[in-house]
Amino acid sequence: MQRYFVDQPASPKEFELPKDIAHHLITVMRAQPGSQVEVVLADHRVYLATVTATAPARVKIVKDLDRNSELPLRVTLLCGLPKTKEKPEMIVQKATELGADKIVFFESARSISHWAKQKQAKKLARLQKIADGAAEQSHRNRQSQVTYSPDLTTALVDNPADQRVVAWEESAKQGETSALHQVLTKMTPGQSLVAVFGPEGGLTSQEVEQMQKAGVIPVGLGPRILRTETAPLYFLAAVSYASELAVNHR
Amino acid sequence: MQRYFVDQPASPKEFELPKDIAHHLITVMRAQPGSQVEVVLADHRVYLATVTATAPARVKIVKDLDRNSELPLRVTLLCGLPKTKEKPEMIVQKATELGADKIVFFESARSISHWAKQKQAKKLARLQKIADGAAEQSHRNRQSQVTYSPDLTTALVDNPADQRVVAWEESAKQGETSALHQVLTKMTPGQSLVAVFGPEGGLTSQEVEQMQKAGVIPVGLGPRILRTETAPLYFLAAVSYASELAVNHR
Repeated sequence: MQRYFVDQPASPKEFELPKDIAHHLITVMRAQPGSQVEVVLADHRVYLATVTATAPARVKIVKDLDRNSELPLRVTLLCGLPKTKEKPEMIVQKATELGADKIVFFESARSISHWAKQKQAKKLARLQKIADGAAEQSHRNRQSQVTYSPDLTTALVDNPADQRVVAWEESAKQGETSALHQVLTKMTPGQSLVAVFGPEGGLTSQEVEQMQKAGVIPVGLGPRILRTETAPLYFLAAVSYASELAVNHR
Repeated sequence: MQRYFVDQPASPKEFELPKDIAHHLITVMRAQPGSQVEVVLADHRVYLATVTATAPARVKIVKDLDRNSELPLRVTLLCGLPKTKEKPEMIVQKATELGADKIVFFESARSISHWAKQKQAKKLARLQKIADGAAEQSHRNRQSQVTYSPDLTTALVDNPADQRVVAWEESAKQGETSALHQVLTKMTPGQSLVAVFGPEGGLTSQEVEQMQKAGVIPVGLGPRILRTETAPLYFLAAVSYASELAVNHR
């Protein structure tokens, strides 16, 4: 069923839809009075709703579907700004599908791209729209938030977390299992996790050192060299596997 | 260091490079006599080699680097043919990076695309080239093989494996942990694993039933709806996490 995010409190039970959603639901999807739709309200809960009018479009909440598809951990990705326009778009779309809470692009030492100040808002708006579409399509309860930081230091300061890791090829195995597995198995549902990824060409050893001094843990993502847009997706899948599939379910 | 796959036995120790590799190494990368390069020979081992001549280009094996970046499990993906040309390309590139042994596109009940017989060889050659490039770039020891099957039955018959799973949204949790975790934890290094993925719109329940009768295990990939090109990448990352990062290392 079609799902929409509506920034509206769970009460009142009947309300008018914002213009863009109304256009998609009525004009594109050809909904009629009586058509059913899922809406995620400001409380991040999924409700079944019925269309009550089409001009203007109004829906009435039928019931709380009590569905949750959010990762148990709140994951923020800090991604070194890639070279091309397509890669941030792909990272945002796929990371939203895979459950990221927030995606931050920062200018890393080896980033070739630079977002001029006057273009940042427009670029972010475009990426946020991709995130919002992916959140609907993947049936999330939350829309990933996309932001920009001028540099790594700002990105780290602006995004505190219970645990912080950096994807680092040269990360050695520490102890019996990998550093990533050790971090993930000690985290508990509701905790926040920041993960840092380099741009093409990777992070510099100074950047990694700076992070290690700040307590960010270097983690390997297996023995293959992953592209800058593939590493965050591997990471989110690993978080899902470890926290949603490999754990005991009550 | 630049890595090339050369279909050539490990002896003799000095040999002429194939034309396409010679062109890339000498013309694009501007290698000189004495330049070093990694070559993966027909034995799937990685060797350090030195350029001994440039016209024609020749290299001499220096030593076996004894590096292995292959997944412990040999994974074959059977992917329902997606609608657009871009999605198979993305699946092939990313799945190669993430360690797939073989990628098979098959015409699923809901596949909208169809590969006419006379176009199959050309389409496969293009995808194989993408796979070969991704194998070099991600420093694999093997190049993922890309093939085509006219239908699911053929794809399954042509690809036997120690374990077979199908990504199925409606797969229930079985027992304490997920079906995927149960499959992965009982597999041992060297075993083969086939995983089936639907096209846009998913597999039909008849297709899933047919597979279940043949012993293919339905597995869920978490609570979010993944696009047809995202599910295989999640799967490979989960296999890597379970078999390379979450296991005890000797």
